[in-house]
Amino acid sequence: MPVRLPPPDPLSLHPVAGVTLGIAEAGIRKKGRRDLLVMSLAPGARVAGVFTQNRFCAAPVVVARQHLSMVDPGQTVRALMVNTGVANAGTGKPGLAHARETCAALAEALHCHPNQILPFSTGVIMEPLPADRIAAAIPRCLESAKPDAWAAAAEAIMTTDTVPKAVSRRYVIGGKSITVTGIAKGAGMIHPNMATMLGFVATDASVSQAALRSAVQHAAQRSFNCITVDGDTSTNDSFMLIATGQAGNSEIADTRGADYRTFCDAVTEVATLLAQAIVRDGEGATKFITVRIEAGRDEAECRKIAFAIAHSPLIKTAFFASDPNLGRILAAIGYAGVDDLDVEAMELYLDDVLVARHGGRDPGYQEADGQRVMKQEEITVRVVLHRGSAALSVWTCDLSHDYVSINADYRS
Amino acid sequence: MPVRLPPPDPLSLHPVAGVTLGIAEAGIRKKGRRDLLVMSLAPGARVAGVFTQNRFCAAPVVVARQHLSMVDPGQTVRALMVNTGVANAGTGKPGLAHARETCAALAEALHCHPNQILPFSTGVIMEPLPADRIAAAIPRCLESAKPDAWAAAAEAIMTTDTVPKAVSRRYVIGGKSITVTGIAKGAGMIHPNMATMLGFVATDASVSQAALRSAVQHAAQRSFNCITVDGDTSTNDSFMLIATGQAGNSEIADTRGADYRTFCDAVTEVATLLAQAIVRDGEGATKFITVRIEAGRDEAECRKIAFAIAHSPLIKTAFFASDPNLGRILAAIGYAGVDDLDVEAMELYLDDVLVARHGGRDPGYQEADGQRVMKQEEITVRVVLHRGSAALSVWTCDLSHDYVSINADYRS
Repeated sequence: MPVRLPPPDPLSLHPVAGVTLGIAEAGIRKKGRRDLLVMSLAPGARVAGVFTQNRFCAAPVVVARQHLSMVDPGQTVRALMVNTGVANAGTGKPGLAHARETCAALAEALHCHPNQILPFSTGVIMEPLPADRIAAAIPRCLESAKPDAWAAAAEAIMTTDTVPKAVSRRYVIGGKSITVTGIAKGAGMIHPNMATMLGFVATDASVSQAALRSAVQHAAQRSFNCITVDGDTSTNDSFMLIATGQAGNSEIADTRGADYRTFCDAVTEVATLLAQAIVRDGEGATKFITVRIEAGRDEAECRKIAFAIAHSPLIKTAFFASDPNLGRILAAIGYAGVDDLDVEAMELYLDDVLVARHGGRDPGYQEADGQRVMKQEEITVRVVLHRGSAALSVWTCDLSHDYVSINADYRS
Repeated sequence: MPVRLPPPDPLSLHPVAGVTLGIAEAGIRKKGRRDLLVMSLAPGARVAGVFTQNRFCAAPVVVARQHLSMVDPGQTVRALMVNTGVANAGTGKPGLAHARETCAALAEALHCHPNQILPFSTGVIMEPLPADRIAAAIPRCLESAKPDAWAAAAEAIMTTDTVPKAVSRRYVIGGKSITVTGIAKGAGMIHPNMATMLGFVATDASVSQAALRSAVQHAAQRSFNCITVDGDTSTNDSFMLIATGQAGNSEIADTRGADYRTFCDAVTEVATLLAQAIVRDGEGATKFITVRIEAGRDEAECRKIAFAIAHSPLIKTAFFASDPNLGRILAAIGYAGVDDLDVEAMELYLDDVLVARHGGRDPGYQEADGQRVMKQEEITVRVVLHRGSAALSVWTCDLSHDYVSINADYRS
């Protein structure tokens, strides 16, 4: 059961002018499953993205990164193709050939160059991609394409997700209404840089390639790179930002100025809601936990401490049990790798409850207060370091019996 | 159920001349539990140790480290005192006072200086240590002290351990028979540098303080710092090496020479068996897994890759399920943080089965072969990097439903 994550209402998902979504059943791994998505882009759309840092990055990541680096103004990306079921990772040179074959097949159907196609895969690692079945399903994808299929698209890219993840918002930039609509998938193998997650956010705003690249990095660092379910960094993670330029705003040319800031905040907001949705649907999650580090010397040390807490299986099982065994949090702060940390100076809060300061339990702390917070579905762990002015939030979930069950049986 | 870890046979545990072990029920946390151990040392015994790197290190760690640094040849350590039930960590200044009170009480009974006592605690974090109840139980500890109580001592220091851990071996050094006998505890919160573990190894060998210090560091780095159950580094970890000097060998004065090497290997062997026992009894463990990295450029990169595999909850649940979902191992190698790793060059083996090379699944690999190995109780994951001549093994266990149950209910 995801934590406070209802399925998206299709009517709340605004189409983005210049983007159509086609979905088909390619029979990649399971029968009766719509497992192929093609997002077609009108000519002139721009795309920027960030990819997994994993050295074993998947074949589609290699190919998508390569194709994206070849994009020039006269030959823009025409489609993103996403399959679920097989990740095409740990597949060596044949995997690269498969990814390229599927790009070629879609390029032929769209009368464009294969470099104008970006491929994405998610699913089981080390299994060959059935490129022929994907190629065969492409025509059905294109025939079914329409601009208002975001909810169905979110469903088509799921793996162990239990709920499709889609977010849509409207903003005003330069006096024009701008739409930002995105979908994401991911539930396990979730870790910064990046999660086993795919995220696709599209906007009709007009944005230069440079500003788009800057915005996608800014948003990734504050959204998808701030979540963890189990600390595993996947081979396939990709977060793509598409700007079709059809909203009629005057182009956001660079990263200075109010329009860029509004745009960047908008994309970050949508990306953060998608990232949080991944945690809410974390494998076996029963609770949604915000770990907020405040008054740190810099963002890097806030991130270290936040993830030491958010990764700890001991802390995550204690949240599952609603057991305020909060010494485990002190232990995690202690081993986070901030060498000169003064544990006497910091404070630990559970929501509004002061738990520890001066290196130990606060005299006013009552276990009943801790217990009350631990029983909630949403909990904030707040650590105030009193070393500086940096702050960072990361999001995680608890570790339950179901996490083990889901991952023990994933392939069966 | 621990993995192939029978309780130690008391008759196999050789006494160490100059060490007596006294045990009592102090009523620290649970009734009817012998929860206090005093290891008394004959005058002249030497002690060296390594402690947790956690910034929130427990009060007894602070005090033991301080007392150990004050040791001089005329005033050696006379006793180590270990309580279970309460870790006296995250307890601030009152915790330090409690640890010192218990040292003072034992020093009074032994007619020595409190600096000659080393305190150790394990159990729940952030609870006050009942120093008065410990002081009251000290006379009963000393009355019951005897040299052949190693099995009972191993039992007295347990927390979530299901089996006492004790190992004893005899070696010949300089023509003399030398005994090395040790006990350890730990089952969860196990991670290098160090595990929530206490380890006490005693020998009757005659060793200089400098050689003893070198040996304890060498042994820790290859034993307790090579295990992980859940990646959490505790506040209380301590590994102490005691040498009573009563075996009659000519003193091992420095770290040169065959006698030192034999001694160092002996201590490392006993420490490694104790460390492996901790993993075999890992919370919820059903399998014992050796992760061996070979042909690495240096030990540091072998360690990074080994622990990326050994920490991954996804890999550990796959072992629990006997599911050869081995792409997860490739993914972990990929995110281990070795930036210039050439994934095309490495090979992955499961015991003797070649699983992957050239960046993907080996054409000769059959899933049935992987499945066969995965079903075993003991499994070796071997990664050959083909980059150099360094190698390292680490040990871990699988992640099962019982890990969640044990940690969700620890305090209840």
